[in-house]
Amino acid sequence: MRTNTKERIVDSSATLFRRQGYTATGVKQIVAEAEAPFSSLYHFFPEGKDQLAAEVIRSSGLFFGELVEAVFDAAPDVLTGVLDCFAGAAETLRQTNYADACPIATVALEVASTNEPLRLATAEVFEGWLRSGTERFARAGLPETRARELAIGMIAALEGAFVLSRAMRTTEPLEVAGAHAAAAVKAALSNIEVTGSSDEPPAPARAPRG
Amino acid sequence: MRTNTKERIVDSSATLFRRQGYTATGVKQIVAEAEAPFSSLYHFFPEGKDQLAAEVIRSSGLFFGELVEAVFDAAPDVLTGVLDCFAGAAETLRQTNYADACPIATVALEVASTNEPLRLATAEVFEGWLRSGTERFARAGLPETRARELAIGMIAALEGAFVLSRAMRTTEPLEVAGAHAAAAVKAALSNIEVTGSSDEPPAPARAPRG
Repeated sequence: MRTNTKERIVDSSATLFRRQGYTATGVKQIVAEAEAPFSSLYHFFPEGKDQLAAEVIRSSGLFFGELVEAVFDAAPDVLTGVLDCFAGAAETLRQTNYADACPIATVALEVASTNEPLRLATAEVFEGWLRSGTERFARAGLPETRARELAIGMIAALEGAFVLSRAMRTTEPLEVAGAHAAAAVKAALSNIEVTGSSDEPPAPARAPRG
Repeated sequence: MRTNTKERIVDSSATLFRRQGYTATGVKQIVAEAEAPFSSLYHFFPEGKDQLAAEVIRSSGLFFGELVEAVFDAAPDVLTGVLDCFAGAAETLRQTNYADACPIATVALEVASTNEPLRLATAEVFEGWLRSGTERFARAGLPETRARELAIGMIAALEGAFVLSRAMRTTEPLEVAGAHAAAAVKAALSNIEVTGSSDEPPAPARAPRG
């Protein structure tokens, strides 16, 4: 039961933070949404809303990261994986009336210059996503540096498209940003094929001329 | 004098909204920062904080849009203009200790699902930026549809890089996103040269064969 109450508090907070931000979400609203007694919030999070928010940022970040990994795992190749991530995000936005985008971006912008412990929590999440993305693109045969650039480009495109899509209530930015991210990955992959500039050991030399 | 007080209120609000968001910014803090009497806020904005916020979103959006236009105007070509925008944004972030990024993104994410008049104000700003960007890329010779896609891709990349850069306190995302946005523009421009697929009237036919 205890675990259930704590989970409900974390889940309700995650939804409220994502939709309306950190500052607008009060502890009373959190316990009401979680159908939890007010005292339970301070039982599980003795330091209050900041401690709760740090846990929400980390757990939402982990959950969203695993979701993206699952989309890539289900795709036949990394290029399709990129497109599927943006298409899935667009579908979720449509289904939730443009409410549910990145679980931590609103909070990240709110706290970046005002709450150092929470800023660090958001930075850890983004760094974790970048590590996963870098590994994913590296496994597709790209050099480490190029793989990290593509991961940054993809996550930046997704985050920026979320801002535009939520404000403008259209999935057009997600569709365009997805196509651009995929084009960048495609160009990097064809560059390997052409120049062989990858971290993989070089292909066996062809039979020498003459 | 009246105009000065009003301008100070709008400017202080813009700075506070950009750095800490809409909800965290109280009217008392705004008038304190603006060195304005409390009553002046309601004199100039009888409907209060929401009316002020709508004006701040529109005027900040206009100012930022003009800044980007000026960067493009000063650049020798549209490709350099794209890179200069991201480099300028990175420089501003470094100079302001990662505080001053997009003037409206924090508010846009906070209000997207909770305050329809303010959401509409942010949507108008983004649409205005997209129109300017589309015109800019179209003047470089790209078809209208392609020009709009590049404008969306560039603004999404910039917004997303701002989120990552502010959270992680590094300009790496802005540098990478800028390079990706420039690569997309370069690819589109060389596609015109190769296929001639632009809105411009076709080049005069070459001398017929034979």
